Amino acid sequence: MKTVRMSIIGFGAVGQGVARVLIDKKEYLEAVGLDFRVVAIADSRTAAIDKNGVDLTAILYRKQTEGIVGPEKVTGLEIIKEIDHELVIETTPTDIVTGGAGLENMLMAFKHGRDVVTSNKGPLAMKYAELMEAADEGDSRFRFEATVGGAMPVLNLAKDALAGNTITNVEGIFNGTCNYILSRMMEEHAPYDQMLAEAQELGFAETDPTYDVEGIDTACKMVILANCIFGMNATHEDVTVTGITKITPEALLLAQNDGYVIKLIGEVNDSMINVGPKLVPVDHPLAVGGSLNVASLQTDLSGPVTVTGRGAGSIETASAILSDMISIYRE
Amino acid sequence: MKTVRMSIIGFGAVGQGVARVLIDKKEYLEAVGLDFRVVAIADSRTAAIDKNGVDLTAILYRKQTEGIVGPEKVTGLEIIKEIDHELVIETTPTDIVTGGAGLENMLMAFKHGRDVVTSNKGPLAMKYAELMEAADEGDSRFRFEATVGGAMPVLNLAKDALAGNTITNVEGIFNGTCNYILSRMMEEHAPYDQMLAEAQELGFAETDPTYDVEGIDTACKMVILANCIFGMNATHEDVTVTGITKITPEALLLAQNDGYVIKLIGEVNDSMINVGPKLVPVDHPLAVGGSLNVASLQTDLSGPVTVTGRGAGSIETASAILSDMISIYRE
Repeated sequence: MKTVRMSIIGFGAVGQGVARVLIDKKEYLEAVGLDFRVVAIADSRTAAIDKNGVDLTAILYRKQTEGIVGPEKVTGLEIIKEIDHELVIETTPTDIVTGGAGLENMLMAFKHGRDVVTSNKGPLAMKYAELMEAADEGDSRFRFEATVGGAMPVLNLAKDALAGNTITNVEGIFNGTCNYILSRMMEEHAPYDQMLAEAQELGFAETDPTYDVEGIDTACKMVILANCIFGMNATHEDVTVTGITKITPEALLLAQNDGYVIKLIGEVNDSMINVGPKLVPVDHPLAVGGSLNVASLQTDLSGPVTVTGRGAGSIETASAILSDMISIYRE
Repeated sequence: MKTVRMSIIGFGAVGQGVARVLIDKKEYLEAVGLDFRVVAIADSRTAAIDKNGVDLTAILYRKQTEGIVGPEKVTGLEIIKEIDHELVIETTPTDIVTGGAGLENMLMAFKHGRDVVTSNKGPLAMKYAELMEAADEGDSRFRFEATVGGAMPVLNLAKDALAGNTITNVEGIFNGTCNYILSRMMEEHAPYDQMLAEAQELGFAETDPTYDVEGIDTACKMVILANCIFGMNATHEDVTVTGITKITPEALLLAQNDGYVIKLIGEVNDSMINVGPKLVPVDHPLAVGGSLNVASLQTDLSGPVTVTGRGAGSIETASAILSDMISIYRE
């Protein structure tokens, strides 16, 4: 049995999802020889620390009832700096202006030779090259499948299952909020505002939906693909972005009459990164409905390989983090 | 640079595809630190052997012009037994009655501690447990992504990219010949015989199409999934199979009028293995057209994850073999 001491830095929906998944999958992980021991958890205000492993169930309960994880007044950054552990799960909120706490946390982890698995797009969309260099210097493993498609594997599909292939293009739907709104506008012939309101009511869209509906979230994901798969050193400011707020039910109806749907498509290859609404034939693999995500990878040997899955959700995103954790430490 | 000495046993479309891919990907492989050195190639009648590495281009040319690979009168089995090498690529034809030469080849490889990567379904659909035990005893690595979906990754998707998830059900289209015939019958409102003839003319169907159109090929693939993902010890005789030969254009039209397509669907979970035509809603992720394959994996954490790709083809199948090779030897 290999014991991996780890911290969870950021304890919102995704961080809590990771804790839940670790509780649920304890037996499974032991069967593959892995004992992930959470020695510290930090939210934005407090922390829980125990070098023998914190009580995940108790902390989840405390977070839900009291809104905090623990008694300690210690920051995530201090935990990463001072507590002995091998793996940092970085799940603080995405900040695409400065990279936010996430960037500092990751750099500190690499400085101390710790591995990092993250769902936090901000630092990767802002400072990819700097992060890779720091990870290299710390001899740290760095995985971020969860940043691109939630439970829909894209990076690990490209790197592992399609190893040996050269990926020449990636396009797809990488934002479930936009897909939900467009799918519902089409079904109901209803205007954008009405379906945005419905999405907000059902929890598919944030109170301030700008980040999703203006295509910024998709742009960040395309930047991560551009850097990771195509070896660019791009930031989200290099992306041409158009959102979905100007799409009308009339446009959708015209498309439908010609056998098309309109989707917010992100596309990236070695010479461009683009995000905008596109016409997609209704029987095309990219024409998936509801809030699903889809990615189509064009490869030199295998032709096109398309994968569809849930792009968001607490447990789904935690599942991508868990896959990365297993892939790092499994013998 | 890690040198891996390997043999290619069976030099039909897939074996030749492997040779071509090794030539094309030499630089790529060197960049990831791998030098695959082919020390022997055998077809059903002859062999080429050189412990310093055979000339792949010359052998491909000889095979295409003279129909044989080389001067030696040595069988694949003798090569596996007597030539020093680490990896056997087993690409002899599938035989689902006895397991064929493939079964003997694989068992011999394991007896000598060699790793095996194969596209040959027969042995795996007949003698899964025996093969796993032999691989274990030989401390050999054994990979067979190419047996299930050609260039569509299923096994490695389940084991790597979705690691940590429990797969609860797999269903999909695993035979491109059947999908082509059904897609075309639907488009042309034409009878089965006519579209079979077209598929044969275009090379999408064999002269004797029984193995594909009666669902036997799909059944073998379901058995491999049942054994590999669900821990069964099934053979293709455990599968309830119905083929596509009795489907009429009228049935397809009735389905179409109700918003459905008819597809040959294989389905497997921990309590059943089934192959037969099914109604699929036209906007369902499994409703892919042409000769594409598709697999939908139901998972406990990630929900449904669906992957679409080319299920057959010389280079596509070789690409799945290459991914397995890289995943075994990459550091």
